[in-house]
Amino acid sequence: MALFMDVHSGMKGLTAEQLRAEHAKDTAIEGKEGVRFIKAWADPKSGKVFCLAEGPDIEAVRRVHAAAGHPADEVYEVPITVE
Amino acid sequence: MALFMDVHSGMKGLTAEQLRAEHAKDTAIEGKEGVRFIKAWADPKSGKVFCLAEGPDIEAVRRVHAAAGHPADEVYEVPITVE
Repeated sequence: MALFMDVHSGMKGLTAEQLRAEHAKDTAIEGKEGVRFIKAWADPKSGKVFCLAEGPDIEAVRRVHAAAGHPADEVYEVPITVE
Repeated sequence: MALFMDVHSGMKGLTAEQLRAEHAKDTAIEGKEGVRFIKAWADPKSGKVFCLAEGPDIEAVRRVHAAAGHPADEVYEVPITVE
């Protein structure tokens, strides 16, 4: 199981309710791909959304987001974390 | 207090030790700006690093990273989160 950060661009004006609804579309189907979306952060001003997920590989994360109707613009595996 | 996600590019080959050392440079000085770096995720393959922080504004986050010697390429306020 690996950790991933993905980035969506162009979601200007996104509301908290819309983010929740889009996130729910991911979590409803993520199990099929062995993915778990952990958290998401959004900036409605720039339209950027960052999603943290765990799963088997980048392509599985991409497939969940694509099937949910909001394909990611970028997906990175983030094996190194610090806090 | 607001929440921010910043992005560094071009840090290919970054190791866990290097990320910890860079993060420590931030946390050593962040108090002067009222900033707190919460967590960071790195992809040594693409060279992307994502940092989550709280603080008063984007410029304060930029100043800490700049003073620590690793200016951020992008900083976004992320007022909307979901988990």
